Amino acid sequence: MAYELHYWPGIQGRGEFVRLALEAAGAPYTDVARGAEDAGQGTAAMLRCLHDATQPHPPFAPPFLKDGSLLIGQTAVILHYLAPQLKLVARSEQARLWTQQIQLTIADLVSEAHDTHHPVGAGLYYEDQKPEALRRAREFCSARLPKYLQWFESIVVRNPAGPRHLVGGKLSYAELSLFQLVEGLRYAFPKAAARALAGTPGVVRLHDRVAELPRVAAYLRSERRLPFNEQGIFRRYPELDVL
Amino acid sequence: MAYELHYWPGIQGRGEFVRLALEAAGAPYTDVARGAEDAGQGTAAMLRCLHDATQPHPPFAPPFLKDGSLLIGQTAVILHYLAPQLKLVARSEQARLWTQQIQLTIADLVSEAHDTHHPVGAGLYYEDQKPEALRRAREFCSARLPKYLQWFESIVVRNPAGPRHLVGGKLSYAELSLFQLVEGLRYAFPKAAARALAGTPGVVRLHDRVAELPRVAAYLRSERRLPFNEQGIFRRYPELDVL
Repeated sequence: MAYELHYWPGIQGRGEFVRLALEAAGAPYTDVARGAEDAGQGTAAMLRCLHDATQPHPPFAPPFLKDGSLLIGQTAVILHYLAPQLKLVARSEQARLWTQQIQLTIADLVSEAHDTHHPVGAGLYYEDQKPEALRRAREFCSARLPKYLQWFESIVVRNPAGPRHLVGGKLSYAELSLFQLVEGLRYAFPKAAARALAGTPGVVRLHDRVAELPRVAAYLRSERRLPFNEQGIFRRYPELDVL
Repeated sequence: MAYELHYWPGIQGRGEFVRLALEAAGAPYTDVARGAEDAGQGTAAMLRCLHDATQPHPPFAPPFLKDGSLLIGQTAVILHYLAPQLKLVARSEQARLWTQQIQLTIADLVSEAHDTHHPVGAGLYYEDQKPEALRRAREFCSARLPKYLQWFESIVVRNPAGPRHLVGGKLSYAELSLFQLVEGLRYAFPKAAARALAGTPGVVRLHDRVAELPRVAAYLRSERRLPFNEQGIFRRYPELDVL
């Protein structure tokens, strides 16, 4: 049975980390909120599932995954669950923990990237918090972004199985997420990302190899891959790309 | 062999979620950075471990746990790893996933609570971002805090094994973390937390029962429990406790 992915239909957002894993593995899935209302899909179907008061394990927010009767929220937990089925994590418990640890560190950077345009709160428009956003973006571009990327570089370089992969000797969901992170940072902060990535050649090579994986490349060319835009996590506001 | 917990010595912070699990289980552990320098401990020992360039799986930041040769970062991953050993999670994979999902949702709220006093960036002082902090705290107290607490209440009420526990019929690390979350919110936002918690009696009862567990109660009375203060995640700045 196909997995059901539930996420906001107009943005890549956090749903994209799950989508990339499903696509890279060639797994069958329905992107529910992007489906047709008259087929019982669409955003309304997602919200019905989210607000179903009979559901004992309701997610707090999208993305969430439905696999038969199982409903799972939180991006990193979804990936941790899917990975053995999709062969996107090594079998040992230690490798699974390390992969999850990397994923949560990526998630931390994703949240910080989001907060550059929403430092005062997600409930307000960017236009209502531009001065605060500029202050936060300065710290993000000058300190946080390089610090995180240097950490990713260090773990690529130190991978005992070599720098062709992020964890061990094969593709993992964390590697796909790192690809997406680089994509998002380059979109939102072209100058700051270029400067930081100049010091992390191992990360850039991982990104480039992921982009060339046949299933990923086909996905990126397809209409299933939404473009970045200014409603998502990674937004191109040139004034926030500060060197 | 005793676990080694590495975390900043002067604050509860994110390390407290791990400390509570170890204490509630009566597990032997060393709180490394709070130990004596001349015993090879202290903050310097923590930083040596954090910056050890020969370590293939370096943590990005404290807290991290050392268990023999295994080094694990990210609070939620540490808890996911420890829980089966400490009997703080049910055995089924589904229960482990659900517990982790709750933990990550608690972590999201913890991050948002932190950002009320550091909306512009963790690298600046609170005193340098007070107007921004006030704006963020307003949204946090009026919208985010109640929304999260209502979600926690809903999962307590819907627990198929009854509302005496958060997951199934026994204590889990997520329940200890929810206790700590309530403690922190009441410290930092006494008025806003009281108002939100008035609508979540199930969460309050869980909190109270955790506080009365003999090992937890003994820990809370001990010197090992650091007091809350204005260097941690939960800070009492009365101007940010907005109704």
